[in-house]
Amino acid sequence: MTAIDRAIAHARANRDQHLKELKDFVAIPSISTLPDHRQDVARTAEWLSDTLRRIGIDRVAVMPTAGHPVVYGEHLRAPDGATVLVYGHYDVQPADPLDEWETGPFEPAVRGDYLYGRGASDMKGQIYALIKAVEALLRADSLPVNVKFLIEGEEEIGSPHLGPFIETHETQLRCDVVLNCDSGIHGPDVPAITYSLRGLAYFELEVRAAEKDLHSGLFGGTIHNPAQALCELIAGMHDADGRVTLPGFYDRVRPLDDEERELLARVPYSDEEWLAMTGAPKLWGEKGFSTIERMGARPTLEVNGLVGGFTGEGSKTVLPAKALAKISMRLVADQNPAEVHDQLCAYLRERAPDTISWEVRELTHGEGAVMERNSPFIRAAASALEQVYGMPPIFKREGGSVPVVGMMQKTLGVDSVMLGFALPSDGIHGPNERQYLPNYFRGIETYIRFLGGLKDAV
Amino acid sequence: MTAIDRAIAHARANRDQHLKELKDFVAIPSISTLPDHRQDVARTAEWLSDTLRRIGIDRVAVMPTAGHPVVYGEHLRAPDGATVLVYGHYDVQPADPLDEWETGPFEPAVRGDYLYGRGASDMKGQIYALIKAVEALLRADSLPVNVKFLIEGEEEIGSPHLGPFIETHETQLRCDVVLNCDSGIHGPDVPAITYSLRGLAYFELEVRAAEKDLHSGLFGGTIHNPAQALCELIAGMHDADGRVTLPGFYDRVRPLDDEERELLARVPYSDEEWLAMTGAPKLWGEKGFSTIERMGARPTLEVNGLVGGFTGEGSKTVLPAKALAKISMRLVADQNPAEVHDQLCAYLRERAPDTISWEVRELTHGEGAVMERNSPFIRAAASALEQVYGMPPIFKREGGSVPVVGMMQKTLGVDSVMLGFALPSDGIHGPNERQYLPNYFRGIETYIRFLGGLKDAV
Repeated sequence: MTAIDRAIAHARANRDQHLKELKDFVAIPSISTLPDHRQDVARTAEWLSDTLRRIGIDRVAVMPTAGHPVVYGEHLRAPDGATVLVYGHYDVQPADPLDEWETGPFEPAVRGDYLYGRGASDMKGQIYALIKAVEALLRADSLPVNVKFLIEGEEEIGSPHLGPFIETHETQLRCDVVLNCDSGIHGPDVPAITYSLRGLAYFELEVRAAEKDLHSGLFGGTIHNPAQALCELIAGMHDADGRVTLPGFYDRVRPLDDEERELLARVPYSDEEWLAMTGAPKLWGEKGFSTIERMGARPTLEVNGLVGGFTGEGSKTVLPAKALAKISMRLVADQNPAEVHDQLCAYLRERAPDTISWEVRELTHGEGAVMERNSPFIRAAASALEQVYGMPPIFKREGGSVPVVGMMQKTLGVDSVMLGFALPSDGIHGPNERQYLPNYFRGIETYIRFLGGLKDAV
Repeated sequence: MTAIDRAIAHARANRDQHLKELKDFVAIPSISTLPDHRQDVARTAEWLSDTLRRIGIDRVAVMPTAGHPVVYGEHLRAPDGATVLVYGHYDVQPADPLDEWETGPFEPAVRGDYLYGRGASDMKGQIYALIKAVEALLRADSLPVNVKFLIEGEEEIGSPHLGPFIETHETQLRCDVVLNCDSGIHGPDVPAITYSLRGLAYFELEVRAAEKDLHSGLFGGTIHNPAQALCELIAGMHDADGRVTLPGFYDRVRPLDDEERELLARVPYSDEEWLAMTGAPKLWGEKGFSTIERMGARPTLEVNGLVGGFTGEGSKTVLPAKALAKISMRLVADQNPAEVHDQLCAYLRERAPDTISWEVRELTHGEGAVMERNSPFIRAAASALEQVYGMPPIFKREGGSVPVVGMMQKTLGVDSVMLGFALPSDGIHGPNERQYLPNYFRGIETYIRFLGGLKDAV
């Protein structure tokens, strides 16, 4: 029995315990964006650092930032081995709309093959699988690499303090590669490696006309309704081909070459499954690109929220004083969030009528990243996935944003291996988020094989 | 001293008391649209019926409907006199946004010449001025007409049970004219008589794409964002000339003739004052019409509310499952709310893409009305206003909707005299609603002169 086999055997023997512990983790409502949950976020950081100590990590600390703390750990007992910096986050998205959850978002419940709960998939399930893999390797005395842990509590609010944290602790965080567990695979049995992530630029656009809400009968039709004006501005942000109309928006977008289009065309995908997964009546998107390309290789502009005027039950005949939209763009290489901010303002300067006033506030942003597909670390990840799933992984671009990947490239000079086991159908950020449990357990085994197999990577 | 002079003297001697009682009335939060305030609405009806009994009205009753009750009263001691049916409402609009009120909406407070509080102007101040006028005439033993009171509790939710109530009690409500106090004048010192009211058709439009909220990074750009689709649909509801694009929307609109345009042109108005009153940066509206015409003689379509996706603090990268707008149309003769509903649905059938689904729900509606400008009752009202204000009233069309006027025309066969003292700057339906107190007291005197002068009207 090899060392890795011993670790795998340990993991398989402890599955019930691994599920129980994950439920404890998911039960803490570590919602980073809501001030009411500040204590819960702090409690989660303590819980996680206790866990790292318990599995035997040498040095563990909860390190403060100007926001929520970072859980740091290091285990440096392989002088000739590579150093892997594990990245993850322990915070979660808000759970609303609450009334659409079948069981409480923080009352983790197993139904069928799934564990339901906010954060079960994004990403408590992923980071906990990694921790359990490291534990198994330590128990089997077969961890061939040095490991550092950087688990933040602000990913869901755009990691506002992570950049400064990495810069300040650059020496401490030095590594050969980042293992980023905040990722997913393509289907329950289809392993995948993400080699590209989109950036994010997230704004609030507020439109105002009158100073206060007015009676719609007395004033309607004589001044511009700001809710209508906001709709007009938003409607103009896409053309009939589904392209974003902000001036210069596509100028820096790196075109897809034929080789990559072919690679992406191999990603298993069907319109029917995609529609069934979303429940949407029909596909939509930028003309000239496949759904897979639209999702990962093309930038988008989305309205994340809309609010203005009377939104309660029944009717109120009000002419709203203001209306607000949350609007975010997913960016691809080599777009730049600051430039996109300027493009949005340029669009508004050009298109907004003088019958209203408007204001743009940036809420968060992050850069996208494209990784080298042929590094020894990516090859090790591909090999681990193939051993566990019985087929080689597909290579894909991810539609989501993991700003830390860009930060790591910039500050530490290393690429990230995106290796996680979330599924597109896990409902992350929405109600009834869930983790597919067979993949939680296969994830633990994949992480064991990946780390265990890194002996000769450097 | 004439009988009317005695009544005026009585009113003037009791101004402090009249203000104190109005404050008690405003203090009860009779918000008809919010189920939590059902008891407050019932309490207001009791308070009002006690008041009518106290001033000496012969028969008073709180009469149930399928919704909030009607306060009814009658005083029929003038066998040869006309019978005036006084219409008013004791319910008020919701008070949100609460944080924009300087003092609590239901803590009536006098600052300068104004009484602040929800309902102070719409319309507790108006109906209470009328009640105090009747009291003064009764004290002076000089009420020359029969008076019936019909004060409902559901005007702010579109009077859903008033039509059936009037039909059921047609004999009891028989009268020569309706005195509708739910009205206003043009400026603090500019008396006005409204001879036209707009109708209302109020809808909720819900747009859906996915079955649940999705991650905007994973799914954004591949299915139609319903918030964006809703904006696109709303943006298309007006053309570049500010005209409503619903098919057939203007087909029944009665054009303004030259005589009426000239009459409306006499309404004192300035762009600067209008802008100062609203705080809007610029006027807006249907091309080819003046602001006064846009407000009263032309139909409009307004977005009263918008909501969808994440609307809390901070950012959430969600692709909303649905988005909703409250949309209402102000109608002019001879538009019909049921037809407008069909026009809205026809627009949506024609313009809504098949990438989303939509649903229209009607929330409330009411017909508009145009009254005969030369009836003896209108002449009596004009005379009363001229005596109190020292100038003849202007004749105007009102932008708001008082559906009961159409109901009274239809069921009882009588016109309404719109005689009330609210000002356009009272902020009705918005925060810091207020009643201009000099007009409250002049209103009492005008009602005394109007009712007292109706001796020979029939």
